[in-house]
Amino acid sequence: MKKRVAVIGAGPSGLAQLRAFQSAKAKGADIPEIVCFEKQSNWGGLWNYTWRTGLDENGEPVHCSMYRYLWSNGPKEGLEFADYSFEEHFGKQIASYPPRAVLFDYIEGRVKRAGVRDWIRFSTTVRMVRYNEDKGNFTVTVHDLKQDRMYDEDFDNVIVASGHFSVPNVPEYPGFDKFNGRVLHAHDFRDAREFAGKDLLLLGSSYSAEDIGSQCWKYGAKSITVAYRHAPMGFKWPDNWKEVPKLERVDETTAYFADGTSKKVDAIILCTGYKHHFPFLPDDLRLKTANRLATADLYKGVVWVHNPKLFYIGMQDQWFTFNMFDAQAWWVRDAIMGRIQIPADKAVLLKDVEDRVAGEDAGQDAHDAIHYQGDYVKELIAETDYPSFDVDGACEAFFEWKEHKKHDIMAFRDNAYRSVITGTMAPVHHTPWKDALEDSMESYLRN
Amino acid sequence: MKKRVAVIGAGPSGLAQLRAFQSAKAKGADIPEIVCFEKQSNWGGLWNYTWRTGLDENGEPVHCSMYRYLWSNGPKEGLEFADYSFEEHFGKQIASYPPRAVLFDYIEGRVKRAGVRDWIRFSTTVRMVRYNEDKGNFTVTVHDLKQDRMYDEDFDNVIVASGHFSVPNVPEYPGFDKFNGRVLHAHDFRDAREFAGKDLLLLGSSYSAEDIGSQCWKYGAKSITVAYRHAPMGFKWPDNWKEVPKLERVDETTAYFADGTSKKVDAIILCTGYKHHFPFLPDDLRLKTANRLATADLYKGVVWVHNPKLFYIGMQDQWFTFNMFDAQAWWVRDAIMGRIQIPADKAVLLKDVEDRVAGEDAGQDAHDAIHYQGDYVKELIAETDYPSFDVDGACEAFFEWKEHKKHDIMAFRDNAYRSVITGTMAPVHHTPWKDALEDSMESYLRN
Ligand SMILES: Cc1cc2nc3c(=O)[nH]c(=O)nc-3n(C[C@H](O)[C@H](O)[C@H](O)COP(=O)(O)OP(=O)(O)OC[C@H]3O[C@@H](n4cnc5c(N)ncnc54)[C@H](O)[C@@H]3O)c2cc1C
Ligand SMILES: Cc1cc2nc3c(=O)[nH]c(=O)nc-3n(C[C@H](O)[C@H](O)[C@H](O)COP(=O)(O)OP(=O)(O)OC[C@H]3O[C@@H](n4cnc5c(N)ncnc54)[C@H](O)[C@@H]3O)c2cc1C
Ligand SMILES: NC(=O)c1ccc[n+]([C@@H]2O[C@H](COP(=O)([O-])OP(=O)(O)OC[C@H]3O[C@@H](n4cnc5c(N)ncnc54)[C@H](OP(=O)(O)O)[C@@H]3O)[C@@H](O)[C@H]2O)c1
Ligand SMILES: NC(=O)c1ccc[n+]([C@@H]2O[C@H](COP(=O)([O-])OP(=O)(O)OC[C@H]3O[C@@H](n4cnc5c(N)ncnc54)[C@H](OP(=O)(O)O)[C@@H]3O)[C@@H](O)[C@H]2O)c1
Repeated sequence: MKKRVAVIGAGPSGLAQLRAFQSAKAKGADIPEIVCFEKQSNWGGLWNYTWRTGLDENGEPVHCSMYRYLWSNGPKEGLEFADYSFEEHFGKQIASYPPRAVLFDYIEGRVKRAGVRDWIRFSTTVRMVRYNEDKGNFTVTVHDLKQDRMYDEDFDNVIVASGHFSVPNVPEYPGFDKFNGRVLHAHDFRDAREFAGKDLLLLGSSYSAEDIGSQCWKYGAKSITVAYRHAPMGFKWPDNWKEVPKLERVDETTAYFADGTSKKVDAIILCTGYKHHFPFLPDDLRLKTANRLATADLYKGVVWVHNPKLFYIGMQDQWFTFNMFDAQAWWVRDAIMGRIQIPADKAVLLKDVEDRVAGEDAGQDAHDAIHYQGDYVKELIAETDYPSFDVDGACEAFFEWKEHKKHDIMAFRDNAYRSVITGTMAPVHHTPWKDALEDSMESYLRN
Repeated sequence: MKKRVAVIGAGPSGLAQLRAFQSAKAKGADIPEIVCFEKQSNWGGLWNYTWRTGLDENGEPVHCSMYRYLWSNGPKEGLEFADYSFEEHFGKQIASYPPRAVLFDYIEGRVKRAGVRDWIRFSTTVRMVRYNEDKGNFTVTVHDLKQDRMYDEDFDNVIVASGHFSVPNVPEYPGFDKFNGRVLHAHDFRDAREFAGKDLLLLGSSYSAEDIGSQCWKYGAKSITVAYRHAPMGFKWPDNWKEVPKLERVDETTAYFADGTSKKVDAIILCTGYKHHFPFLPDDLRLKTANRLATADLYKGVVWVHNPKLFYIGMQDQWFTFNMFDAQAWWVRDAIMGRIQIPADKAVLLKDVEDRVAGEDAGQDAHDAIHYQGDYVKELIAETDYPSFDVDGACEAFFEWKEHKKHDIMAFRDNAYRSVITGTMAPVHHTPWKDALEDSMESYLRN
């Protein structure tokens, strides 16, 4: 009997998984029946932009955390598919920090060519997954939101690719309920223009605080005040941008910080990160982990140590993204198809997790972290037929990127890097990022 | 073996159900074991205000649709508990349109006195309910969000009291993805002050459009434009408030209406109503109905015709609220405790639903609708020991209220009505609504 495999989510990770199976089929392999359940009405995950926030047209949590005018915050040379280069997709090299719509088009291009769209049931959210001890398989309860029909289907394996940068971590500080302006999490941020002329307070000191602050600065906010919890971002900020220590409280109009200073602000944007959240997974199957390079409980970063018929991809903190999801997807495919043996002894699985955690903890700085994750990508690729590529070269692109950000935080996207897949240099974009207010694919590709 | 009954939700309906069982126990009856699951960390349902929107501190949909400075939009004399008057709770009569915090205190007062808080498991969301054909009972899967623990428990009956004014109905109009201002649903509206000095577009022509528009007018919006779909509200609006026909589209800055007119607006608030949404109920148990007085599939408005061990309360459109939920809760209690027999013949149950729908459809206007729902409340109360009260008197309060709104939409809350429970007249509030910017309980009770 043919194996049945459920993939939860059709974002970059889920699509990488479909592509992995399709590429094996194209090489003549006999692959399992693959069914992908996707809550949204289209694929692309976070890259599938919507103006909606909160609950969507079906009453389900809006997945999208992206916003208008978002450009990649890392060089495209660090995430390029090894089996489908940017040049192959666009027919020419393009600049290194594409806006959302351009990367969405690129993600789509590979799976359109692979012809896997009909493996996906759109507007269908997974409500619950149960493992049947007796039958040794899973019962997946899904809700077809268009027909408003809930039904069960059984599968031999389940691959969770539902992402972990959608469900917000929303802290409360004293006074939030009395503050007379808007309080929102980065997940609900859609348009910097809403904050033009405003004095803004941002909490958090990572990528969302950096980019949402930069967006609001670019589109005319009056001032940006970023309150960090542990450490400031420390970039060379423009004049109307200040990093201050931890927020203590707010009153109707003003924020008060740990150093005794205060600032009148119009709105508060909580760039305070996200949670791994799996409302559809019971305790025996549910991953509980922090946002780090070595997650808890995943052998090789993908196999659920408590039940190796269950896999997770895309669950790590992400220097690498698309190419890491590919490496994971090809590996998971081969484990399911029996090409790779998962050790039967659970102690071996647990030791692997332990070692990965120790390896990450031993790292001193971002440089070590980037190599740590690069080595992980290399490790998985070495075990499958995914085209090996110059991962260390991609690490170099990240190192250059870090320097460019230190040099000029509002101009790092004006740099160009060399593709490790095709060897060609990207062109410098025709317009400096800070002046390019338009983010459509047409305008970006006018190079 | 003692029956076990699960109540889903601890809003006014769920709390009415707990109070109903407790009052029977207080009269010496042997009641089933009652377990109430409440997603929020406190009781009160929509009345439990939070500044949060979208997803809450546990990653679950925020339930609250209320906002700062919200006052009851109907006379308190239309919703007073027959077994716990306002005068009993506050020790004096109070004005007729209390702000949220005052009504929350009143709702809380009755169940604090009843001592039922420990029947409720807070921060515990129901994930799934299954009916076990073989055992004739239900398995309820819940998620303790504080412990992050998911577990199952079996019950003989389930009472769904999860409300139907929380999950938004969010339509899309052409251009929403390009509009340069904020687009939000009434469910995410928290503070009229965010819109001071702004030109606002509201969609919808019912209570949310009326009250959110009035709030924004009261707290200094520049202009209110309300686009109706079928019919305008038709009240005597202030100068800076205009009702216009249906919205057709928006561009970056401007809204265009069916009559060819247009208006530059800064934000769009979708007051477009809510959905009955039960992600935790499979098809065999899930109510699918419009927001009307006679819902589908509920015998006596509360018994699931397809499985009479399952009950729903609070699912009707609401002229009456607290006292109607009481009438339903007492009736459901007595059905579960065998004091009331539910006809075994499903055809009888279906005929009841049919008649109620026909009865509603026969109504010509709001006057008929109010009597229709008043008669329904009387019908249920007549079958239980809930203290009967002058329901027609409450209908009179609603009729007066309608007139007062026609007379002056921005001053109807400056009227006073007579309690049908204690017979005393409410005082006129010490400050006209339009001048009372503060909505705390202390300030309201300063009468
Ligand atoms: C604001 C923001 C900006 C980012 N920018 C970049 C960038 O510039 N470059 C970069 O490389 N990375 C970026 N990332 C990182 C991002 O995580 C990855 O790019 C990528 O989107 C991860 O893919 P994924 O498939 O694992 O998860 P996601 O993209 O989140 O996709 C998960 C999918 O699962 C679906 N899903 C969830 N729950 C269910 C369910 N119950 N049933 C069915 N379907 C479900 C969702 O609808 C979604 O389609 C960004 C992340 C954020 C939050
Ligand atoms: C903006 C607004 C203003 C209103 N103003 C008035 C007014 O002035 N006067 C009036 O009489 N009525 C008003 N109403 C009507 C309101 O519906 C009722 O007052 C009352 O709140 C209904 O009570 P309920 O218990 O049926 O539902 P709710 O109050 O909605 O309570 C439902 C409860 O179920 C819980 N719940 C939901 N899903 C789950 C789950 N899966 N697991 C566990 N718990 C769950 C929720 O957290 C919530 O506590 C207003 C409604 C809205 C939307
Ligand atoms: N393309 C883009 O421009 C773009 C934009 C946004 C995000 N992203 C991506 O999105 C992903 C997530 O990034 P992120 O920045 O949202 O999350 P993150 O990297 O997890 O950072 C979370 C931040 O929130 C802070 N924080 C957490 N709890 C807090 C609290 N209670 N009070 C104050 N601060 C608190 C943390 O501070 P501590 O350091 O003190 O813990 C940290 O700085 C990343 O992969 C990133 O690349 C990309
Ligand atoms: N205390 C308060 O002040 C207060 C405040 C707000 C709400 N409430 C309560 O909340 C409950 C719900 O009231 P509500 O007004 O939110 O919902 P509602 O009564 O269901 O009204 C929904 C409105 O949205 C309109 N609509 C629906 N879909 C639309 C679309 N696609 N385009 C344009 N318009 C659309 C409907 O227009 P049509 O008529 O054309 O269908 C209707 O006017 C009520 O019980 C009310 O009492 C109370």
